[in-house]
Parts: sequence; C-alpha cells; structure tokens
Amino acid sequence: MQLQLSTWAEVEAYLRRSTGVIIPIGSTEQHGPNGMIGTDAICPEVIARGVGEAADALVAPTVSIGMAQHHLAFPGSVTLRPSTLIALLNDVVLSLARHGFDRFYFLNGHGGNVATVTAAFSEIYAQTSMVREGANHGGIRCKLSNWYMAPGVQQLSKELFAGVEGSHATPSEVSLTFFAYPDHVKQAEMSPRVAPTGTFYDAEDYRRRFPDGRIGSDPSLATVEAGRRLYEAAVADVARDYREFLAAA
Amino acid sequence: MQLQLSTWAEVEAYLRRSTGVIIPIGSTEQHGPNGMIGTDAICPEVIARGVGEAADALVAPTVSIGMAQHHLAFPGSVTLRPSTLIALLNDVVLSLARHGFDRFYFLNGHGGNVATVTAAFSEIYAQTSMVREGANHGGIRCKLSNWYMAPGVQQLSKELFAGVEGSHATPSEVSLTFFAYPDHVKQAEMSPRVAPTGTFYDAEDYRRRFPDGRIGSDPSLATVEAGRRLYEAAVADVARDYREFLAAA
Amino acid sequence: MQLQLSTWAEVEAYLRRSTGVIIPIGSTEQHGPNGMIGTDAICPEVIARGVGEAADALVAPTVSIGMAQHHLAFPGSVTLRPSTLIALLNDVVLSLARHGFDRFYFLNGHGGNVATVTAAFSEIYAQTSMVREGANHGGIRCKLSNWYMAPGVQQLSKELFAGVEGSHATPSEVSLTFFAYPDHVKQAEMSPRVAPTGTFYDAEDYRRRFPDGRIGSDPSLATVEAGRRLYEAAVADVARDYREFLAAA
Amino acid sequence: MQLQLSTWAEVEAYLRRSTGVIIPIGSTEQHGPNGMIGTDAICPEVIARGVGEAADALVAPTVSIGMAQHHLAFPGSVTLRPSTLIALLNDVVLSLARHGFDRFYFLNGHGGNVATVTAAFSEIYAQTSMVREGANHGGIRCKLSNWYMAPGVQQLSKELFAGVEGSHATPSEVSLTFFAYPDHVKQAEMSPRVAPTGTFYDAEDYRRRFPDGRIGSDPSLATVEAGRRLYEAAVADVARDYREFLAAA
Amino acid sequence: MQLQLSTWAEVEAYLRRSTGVIIPIGSTEQHGPNGMIGTDAICPEVIARGVGEAADALVAPTVSIGMAQHHLAFPGSVTLRPSTLIALLNDVVLSLARHGFDRFYFLNGHGGNVATVTAAFSEIYAQTSMVREGANHGGIRCKLSNWYMAPGVQQLSKELFAGVEGSHATPSEVSLTFFAYPDHVKQAEMSPRVAPTGTFYDAEDYRRRFPDGRIGSDPSLATVEAGRRLYEAAVADVARDYREFLAAA
Amino acid sequence: MQLQLSTWAEVEAYLRRSTGVIIPIGSTEQHGPNGMIGTDAICPEVIARGVGEAADALVAPTVSIGMAQHHLAFPGSVTLRPSTLIALLNDVVLSLARHGFDRFYFLNGHGGNVATVTAAFSEIYAQTSMVREGANHGGIRCKLSNWYMAPGVQQLSKELFAGVEGSHATPSEVSLTFFAYPDHVKQAEMSPRVAPTGTFYDAEDYRRRFPDGRIGSDPSLATVEAGRRLYEAAVADVARDYREFLAAA
Repeated sequence: MQLQLSTWAEVEAYLRRSTGVIIPIGSTEQHGPNGMIGTDAICPEVIARGVGEAADALVAPTVSIGMAQHHLAFPGSVTLRPSTLIALLNDVVLSLARHGFDRFYFLNGHGGNVATVTAAFSEIYAQTSMVREGANHGGIRCKLSNWYMAPGVQQLSKELFAGVEGSHATPSEVSLTFFAYPDHVKQAEMSPRVAPTGTFYDAEDYRRRFPDGRIGSDPSLATVEAGRRLYEAAVADVARDYREFLAAA
Repeated sequence: MQLQLSTWAEVEAYLRRSTGVIIPIGSTEQHGPNGMIGTDAICPEVIARGVGEAADALVAPTVSIGMAQHHLAFPGSVTLRPSTLIALLNDVVLSLARHGFDRFYFLNGHGGNVATVTAAFSEIYAQTSMVREGANHGGIRCKLSNWYMAPGVQQLSKELFAGVEGSHATPSEVSLTFFAYPDHVKQAEMSPRVAPTGTFYDAEDYRRRFPDGRIGSDPSLATVEAGRRLYEAAVADVARDYREFLAAA
Repeated sequence: MQLQLSTWAEVEAYLRRSTGVIIPIGSTEQHGPNGMIGTDAICPEVIARGVGEAADALVAPTVSIGMAQHHLAFPGSVTLRPSTLIALLNDVVLSLARHGFDRFYFLNGHGGNVATVTAAFSEIYAQTSMVREGANHGGIRCKLSNWYMAPGVQQLSKELFAGVEGSHATPSEVSLTFFAYPDHVKQAEMSPRVAPTGTFYDAEDYRRRFPDGRIGSDPSLATVEAGRRLYEAAVADVARDYREFLAAA
Repeated sequence: MQLQLSTWAEVEAYLRRSTGVIIPIGSTEQHGPNGMIGTDAICPEVIARGVGEAADALVAPTVSIGMAQHHLAFPGSVTLRPSTLIALLNDVVLSLARHGFDRFYFLNGHGGNVATVTAAFSEIYAQTSMVREGANHGGIRCKLSNWYMAPGVQQLSKELFAGVEGSHATPSEVSLTFFAYPDHVKQAEMSPRVAPTGTFYDAEDYRRRFPDGRIGSDPSLATVEAGRRLYEAAVADVARDYREFLAAA
Repeated sequence: MQLQLSTWAEVEAYLRRSTGVIIPIGSTEQHGPNGMIGTDAICPEVIARGVGEAADALVAPTVSIGMAQHHLAFPGSVTLRPSTLIALLNDVVLSLARHGFDRFYFLNGHGGNVATVTAAFSEIYAQTSMVREGANHGGIRCKLSNWYMAPGVQQLSKELFAGVEGSHATPSEVSLTFFAYPDHVKQAEMSPRVAPTGTFYDAEDYRRRFPDGRIGSDPSLATVEAGRRLYEAAVADVARDYREFLAAA
Repeated sequence: MQLQLSTWAEVEAYLRRSTGVIIPIGSTEQHGPNGMIGTDAICPEVIARGVGEAADALVAPTVSIGMAQHHLAFPGSVTLRPSTLIALLNDVVLSLARHGFDRFYFLNGHGGNVATVTAAFSEIYAQTSMVREGANHGGIRCKLSNWYMAPGVQQLSKELFAGVEGSHATPSEVSLTFFAYPDHVKQAEMSPRVAPTGTFYDAEDYRRRFPDGRIGSDPSLATVEAGRRLYEAAVADVARDYREFLAAA
C-alpha cells in the first residue's frame, strides 16, 4: 500500500490495523560509469513496495535526496547538509506521528545516510527525553534498516559477485536498478576492471582517489536477472524484519 | 532525461549543451474522498518527464513532500515546516550549481508550496546579494511554474469541469493522477456533490470548514481520458515556457 | 490605540474588549528617484493608525524591515533573509498570544513580503498542527492584508494614475508618503517617464533591468492630495476588513 | 537624515561623505503604571534623530522590538528570542555593509538588549574571524551605546530624580517619552511611591517581585520639561561620541 | 562532588538534598606571553571544585570552549559562535532540569562569555515565558557569577598587583593557573612591561592593538603563592554566594 | 602537549612542525552502578594525553558533553542534541583551521557520538563541497577514532573480561577510569551479575530494558591494574594510528 496512491480514508482505515510505516530513503549521486544517479533511491523504493505488498505495510514516498556531500565532485550528485536532512526527517516523523503512527521503519539504500539518519532519530527522541514529563511524542520508535545488509542479500551478493562487489557502485545495487528499469540497462568499460578501495575525506578527495566514482567494485557484471534474485531476497528479509519490528515489546 | 536514471557521465555531457534543470515539486496530503495523497507530486512529476523528452531537459527527482501544514488534520498528510523546505531547496540548488547548472525550473503541483518556494528563492539569492562582491553563486535563476496555471490547462479545465473545478482536490488534478495510474482509479460518493469554498487558517480550522478535504470541487467527474488531455496540454505549455526561461536575456 | 504609546494596564483593559491586533509590516528599500526608502513601512503604518482609531484596534509597532533582497543593489536598501523574518514574526505572534491575543492582522505595504509572511504563518501554525493534541497556541488566526489591494484603493489608483501606476515606486504609494510627510515631498526627473516592466531574479538582475529602481510607474505624478484620498480610501476599506476578520466564525 | 525619508540617490550621495550609520534599538515592553510600552524604542529614536541633524548622520529605522523576555508576564510586552535578534541584527548589518557602510552605531534604550546585541556583534565578526583569509566583511565596526549611560544624562538624572531614578520605568525615560509625545502624558498613582529593587530570573519571577512593573523608581515625577532637558543632554553627548567613533583609528 | 566522578545513584542521592549545580565555564584562547590558553577554563574549574567541597555542591564538567571570537588572530584560540554557545547551554540546562535540577550556577572565567551566557539564559527562559500556561521548565533559575569579580578576589588583586592587573592575561588569573599547574609555570619577557589598554572590535583589530595579546597587565608578576591566596579568597566568596543563591526566595 | 597548558607562542611554534591536533570527545552519562558519569570523557582524555607525549601531538580540551539522549532517564546524564553537537564541532574545527590546522583527529570514548560526529564532518566538508570553486577550508581532514576499537585494546579486553565486557559500562572502560582516578574506585553489587543485552529506542525505553544502566557487562570486575594495561595498549595503538593519519597521502 503506497501512501502516495491512497486516499486519506484508506490511511485512516489502515491505522485501525497498524501504526507502522516504511519510509524508503536513498540518495542522488554518481554510481560509477554504468550506474544510475538514483541507484540508492531506486533500490529501497522497489524493495519497500514489494514489502508493502508482502506485509500489508504502508509505504511513504521515497526520500530520494540524502547525504551525498562526498560525491559532489561528480556532475549530477546532489546532497542535503546533515542538518537539513535531520530537519526533514524530524518533520516527516512528527507529521505522521500526529495521525497515530509510532513505528517508523526507514529502509535505506545509501551508506552515507547512516550517520545522519541515526543522528536524526536522536534529535527526534530528544524532544521527549529533554522534558520533565516525557510528554507528546513518547513511544515513537524509529529503525534504520539497510537493504544491502540483509542476510539473504549479503549471501547472494557473495555468491554472485565474490571479490568484485566492492562498496560503492556495486554490481548488486546496479543489478537491482537494471531489474527495476530494464529499459535503462547501461554498458560501460571499467578501467581498471575492479576499482580501488580505501577511505576518503571530502568531495575533492573522493574524486582524486576514485576517479570514475566506483569503490572496489566491478559493476560491468550487473544483470537484470541478478537484480531479480536480489530483489526477492531483499523483500523476504526486510518483510520479516519489519514484522519483527512491529511485534517487538 | 531523468537525473535518477542517468550516469554522471551523461550529466556531464548534458551540461555541455544546457545548464537548465527541471525540478518537480509537490506535496503529500489528502486530496478528498477519491484523490490520491500524492496527487500534487504525481502531476508535476509526470508532466516534467514529458517536458524532459519534449525539450531535452534534465529532470531532477521530485520533491514529493512540501508545505502541507493545513492538511495535517487528515490522516496520511505530511508536511515540512517552511524553514525546513527552504533549507532543502537551498541545498538542492547549491549542489546542482556546483556542477554548473544555473537555470532552475521548479514545476509545482501544490498551491500551498508557492509562498515557501518563493521565499526559498530569496533565501538563496540573499547569499549573493548580501555580500559586497556578489561572489560565488551569482547568476543563478530560479523560476516557479505551477502546471495548473498554464494557459492551455486552465482553458481545458474550464471546458471539462466548468463550475466544479474548485481549488483543492480538483477534477483536473485527480484526472491527471488517474491518467498516470489507471490501475488506481478510485470512486467515492461526494457529499455534497460540490464542496464548499472559503479561506482557512490552521489544520484544525481547515478540517472544520472542509470536512472531506475538498474545496469547491467535484472530483467524482475525474476520468483517465480527461487526464490524458490535461497532460498533453500541460506538457506543451510547460515545454514552451521552459524553453523561454532558458533563452531569456 | 498604539501599543507603543499605551501602558500595560491599558492593554489589559483592551484585552477585555478585543483579542485582535494590527501589525503594520513594510520594508526598507529603494523606491525610485523620488520615493522614500521607507515607503513600504510608512504606508501601512499611517493607515493602521487611522484604522486603529476607526475600529478601536490596537496597533503594534511597525515591522519596518522586511524581505527586500532584490533591492540590495541600490544603496540604503536593507533586507531580512526569509528565515530571519519568519523567526521574527513567530516571536511577535507568540509573545502577544501569551497575553491572550488570537487575531493577528498584518497590514502589509510590500509585495516582496507576501511569500515570506505567508510562510511564517504556516511555520507558526505548524507548531500546533504537528503535535498530537493540538495543544498550546491553537486557535490563533493570522491574516495578511495588502493595503494597496483594497478595492477602494485600487479603484482610486486607477482613476488617478491610469496606465502609469506600475508595480514598484508607484505614484499611489509615493503620494501616500507625501501625505504622511509633506515636508519631505521630493521631485525628480523620470527617464524614461514611465519605467519598464518585467520580471527579475536576484538583486543584480533587478538593477540591470530597472536602472533607477521603478517598475512600470511614473511617480513624478505623486501629490499630497492624492495621498490624502488614498489614505481615506484605505482606512475605510481596511477598517471594514479588520472588523470582518474579528467577527468571522 | 533619516534613511526612511531618503531616496536611494540621497543615500548614495551620503556614502560619499560618510560610511557611518546610527541604528536606534529599543524594546516593546511594560514600563510601569504611567510609562508607555514603547518607551525604550521612543527614547533612542528621538535622540538619534537629533544626533542625525547635529552630526550629519544617517539614521536607520528603529529596531523597536528587542529582548524583553522578562517582561512577558505583563500584557502588551513583546520579545524576540536572543537567537532571533542576533539573526536580525546580522542581516541589517550585512545589508548595509554591502552598500559600503562600515561604522554601525547602535543607540540603545533597553538594558535587556545589551547582552544579546553584544553577542550579535561577535556573531557578525565571527564570519570574518573564522575564515583563513579574513575575507568579505572585514573592517566592520559595531558599537553599542546606551543613551541613559551618557555622562550628561546620568548627571542630569541624578540632579532631577536623585534616589528615585531606579532602573526600570525610570522618571528620566518616562520624561523623555512625555517630551516626545506630550499628548500622551499619563498620570498614575504609584504604590508604593518608590518601587522595590532587586534581581530577577524569568518573566513569572519578575512580576512576582515587581507587581506593577517598576524597579526602584518613582516615575510619577516625570515631566515634559525634564524630558526636554534630558533630550538635549543626550543629543549633545551622543553626537560627540558618534563623531569620535567615526574618527577613531 | 564532581558530576564526572560520580555514579548516577550518587546523583540521585544528591538530588534528595539539593537541586543546585555549579557549571564552570571558561574559554580556550591566548593569554599573552606566559599565560596558558586554558586560563579562563582552568580558573573557574579549580575554584568550582573547591566550592563543591566547601558547600556540598555538585560540579558539572567545565564548558571549556566559550566565546572567544576576538582572540582568533592568535594561534590556538578557539571560539564557539554565540548562537552555538546558546544552543549548548540550553541543552545542558534542559538535560539537568529533566532530573530535577533547578538552580544553575554558572561560574565564569571569561569576560567575553558574559553577553552570550546572559543571552542564553533569556533564550532558555523564553521557552517558558512565550507559552500561555508557563508549562514545562518554569521555576528554573540561572545565575552567572564571574570569579574575578568576587569582592575578596578583587581586593586581593588590588593588593597584589595594583596598577598592573589590567583586563586580559592578568597576573591574578595567571597566578591562579600557576597554583593549579605548578609544573607549568612559564616565564616570558613582557615588552612593554605593562600592556596597552583600550577597546577593540573584531579579531584582526584586537591583534593590531594588543600585539602580544595582553590588555593593561603585567603577568610576569604572577606566582604560585599569589595563586593560592586568590584561590582561597575565591572559594570562600563563591561558596557564600552559591549558598545564598540556593537559599533565596 | 596540551593546548590548555600552552601559550599561543608555543602553539605557533608547534604549527611549524605539525598541522595535526587530537580532540578527545566523550560524554556525560550514567555508566551503571559503579561507573563514573564522566567515563566516556575521561578515557579518551587520558589516552590522548599519553598519545600527545608519545607522538608530540597537540591535544585540545576534551569535548566532555556529547550525544547521550538515550541515557537521560538516569540522573546526572547530560546530552547535546545532535544539531547542537554538529554546530559545536564545526566551530571548533573552523577556529583551529584558521590557524593552519588541517588534520583533526577526534579520539572518541562514546559509541553514541559516532553518528553525530560523522554527520558533523559532512556538515563541515559541505561548506567546501557545495561551492563552485572549493574555496576557503579545502584540504581539511577529520578522522574519528574510537579508543575501545583499537586492536590492542580489543584483544586485551577479550583476554581480561571475556564474555562480560558487554557494550555499556564495560569493565574495560570502568577500569580505565579507575586507573585515571584511583581515589574514586567504586564498588557496587551487580544484579544480575551480567547485564542484559539488546537494542533500544529513546531514553524511557532504554531505562525500561536496562534498569541499572549497564548493557551486557559486569563492571564489578574492573581494577586499576586492568586500567593501566588498557591505557598502555590504547596509547600505543592510537599513537600509531595518529602518525599514519598525518603521514597519509
């Protein structure tokens, strides 16, 4: 059930059977020579929709621009400053909490979001924790779940792309976008075939170390079929995890 | 050309022929008994994609959550505070400006966004206007265009829905979403058939005056076919307006 | 009744008969060759004082600096960033709400303020709309009224200055300041007699398009007498509108 | 020379002979049984205008709402939070700095503003101090001057109101407002005749300790004539101080 | 009793006998040729610990970085912008208020903090003052106390360093740090022996006027023994003042 | 070399041989029945001082209050909201960058800080990444290092406290504080001996799950001697890591 495609009366009915919501969150940033700039938003979006059907979960619109400061040296990358993203997530959660939602499951597609989203949760909780009574929004629970860390996904990635998965512009995430948008499958020469690995600091530094944007990966191996298998593994894992989140004491 | 479906190299190539970008901006809010909560985001998104093809324009991901404070008394509505939305738009514009973009065409689907988006433009410009030299981002131009105000759209709305178009949850915008998502066409009894009109203050006040969310409209008349015609009118008008924006001295 | 000239005991007494307040809001910005920089603040201030007497309304001190980013290329213009003006209006409204005021009538003299003031209202309302209970300041109503849009004023402007009223540094507003400050009537050659019209982006762009600051107007026609007539028309219209605002359900 | 009554061309001409500006800053807050709520704004405003004539100084519009949190338990008092006032002063200074102003003389009428205005100066300077090069707005000088601390004023207050001057709603400041607005001279019984003195914490605490708003004063002694003498003493002292500020190395 | 060295159960027990807390606040900034950069943090920290023992007071960790914008032209100086320091103090006070603390005694070692800390108190109080009911944190009292202004300290400084105490990098504060860190006693030639005095604007201006960082002082006279005597005088005075703060109606 | 105990001339000399600085960052929060509230600040502070000597590194004052929202249900815990901590770290880094520092090594003692500190780095970098030229502070590198993750520390913890180390109020960190403050060694009955483990949401939830504050640990095993060994292991590891950070290309 997609929030964007529902009426308010349908949401009202949903709230009578569940107070949980899935919020896909991604990024708009370079993903190497053949990866789409929207990769990190597309992946959690399509998985969330699958989970929405599998687990009767409401799926909010995707937060498609995240924290991608380190990719800004590549054309087309867009970032929110962490402070902006924190404000945005706060407003989304408080808006939905007004209606009675209290289990917020953020399905994330971008490692660069983890720190800021985690900080945002604390910013949200602090509004309750820092007052004497614990008034208003107490009882809210926010969870961050990275689809690419789901056990079934990790196992499948290892099986499919052992040694060339890397950590940015991976063949797994590129495959998933090919599965989602088969008309947009892209080919590109990778040179070197497997990108270098390492750490980085700011955007200039990132581009200097990883000239074509990839880190440790060979996404030329990405296929629609691999994407389909990863999608199914992700939906199964995330649906289970979401149900446990709702059921937890 | 969709930013999310492009590689950074494709964006780099695009920048050699154009520094313009279209950013659809909408809202996530109740749209009456048969309107989708994502109506205001869906409409500019689909039109922008049409314009993208018609005018070889890059289309950024949709800002799908806008300023909808006044709809918060209806389940499922989500808002950003104006200050949050201003910060978000600032970051999006500055990120893209780094790459050389300097013509920002915001295609808007929500009247409630107009004030805040306009204020955001001033906040962005002020960073240049308030320094002595006029350094950094000088030369940026931001334009807000409401698809529902396009002349061809207005004429067609009048032709199709004279007297029952209203101003929120209109048959025109609902038709457009039906065209976009024909599998999600919804039926609902309208009572009264045409909703009341008037002004309002905060969210509680809005719901008190407009109990089912509509203002002045009868969206039960919405059809996929009307949506198709509105889409075509909008794409034609907006593409022309976008080209003029780029060409202006 | 002017807040600045009253004692707190007089305000306490006023609150027993009314919870409404008029807040003039203007700007400090260039107004062409013979227009005062304070034009947009002076006009609503003098009208508000007239309305204060006509309608037994409390008049708060004028917010004399508004959003004038686009005028900063002309010496003497001063702006608040939109985010600053939003914070200011929030504080003013919440301060007065503490005392029991709940009908805030902003009498505006500057088109450039409209977006930001409207956004500020949403920012204020959001504090109530985004919490579950709708606690604290619920029931507040803010209204923005542009004196130059009052029907009697528009009719008179048309009668007095048909075709040369324009939209910035208009003969109407300049006349009103001449009426308010007859010792400061100024003469200046207008070249061209009627200024160009059009849209604009940031401050540099504004000055490039409108070299002496005017848009579409010939304020050399301004007179004290025209100002007097406009003042009277404005006071009558605004007093009526203010009373309706207080009386509305 | 008042900024509000000048044209931009007049300001441009002024800038050729001076880069100094006087900004009156006050407050909107209770001033005891017979003091006007605008007392702290009215006093620096009228003095600044006198100084403007005496010293050929440009006088900006008065910042009439200041930091008056501690007066909020009395009807009619209005405050800006310190963070809001800091943002406001920053924007005013940066706007004027763009035009070439670099000597900002804040003439203050409210003790409660001192801390926040002083902090605002540091916030403004920090933008230069915290960057490597010391770019943009280096060379700006901001000075806070309290008219009631001027030596001639202090001496005269002591002569006129020895022992009953107190520190809030003083006979000196009330006299000055009576001189400025002789039609608004107010009478009120003072009980006790001389108000108590002491320190205070928040707004509730203030009202508990000082039930009619005064601290240590007997403003029933205020007269128009005393106001006239205080005005003249203040103008002479402040004009001298302003000239020294401009002339300093 | 130091908060950092206590368990939460010990704090729980303390709260049963007192709701007061001492928060040392200083700065990290140049202190002339032989003064430590941490002088302004070290002094209130060691005094607060003495007072903690003398008056059974809980001592929070030292806020060691304050508002030192004007010292940034000297290597090693660190500042918080006023707005940052206000946010920090707000969070510290609200965190402790949650546990039941309501008497916040800030023991300050840096004149440059006074304005911002005072503004922070108003920012904190405003959260209560600006709501209708005066909910949540009402009853909080914050006091700023400068150790160097304690009567016994002032008298002793005058006795020890008459005429060369100055106002920055004073022999008194340097002595106190020598007493606290006798292994770090430093010698340096002072040239001129007594530093110039005067006012200053931003960081560049400060360094131009006071080339070695001192203002009006000769800290070459500082000794461990003088520090010991100042320490004892300060502890006695501050302990008395703290007790009065807690006992006040 | 401690910044707080150095003169500005000593820092100036240091900058000629190194542009690196170590900034210890911790927290002020409950650490179970026998752990000090300052544990997370004390540990990185003492280690940093050891590293300072071992590696000739300048050590800034400890950021002793961090992000501890989730501990606020225990008396004495203090938090900064993430947005406040981000602002603080930004100011500290920019202040030091002005002097020429460009390698910022944050030695962290609190898992709850990781997300916010990481977000702060992005906020700092974004100021460079989001402008066209990459002006001002380019070249800054910030690194977060958790002392308890150092390989030698992890190995020793496993050796000393296998199975009862847990993740909050661990015997390792408590031992280190005992080593640092042997006069403050505390005893407390642990019940159950080993605390439960698990995840948590806000402050109320944390206390409900972990009633005495510990997670998975038995800190009754903590000893001064274990603390000494952990200290030595940490200093050796961190010194090596710091040197590599400075030497990296």
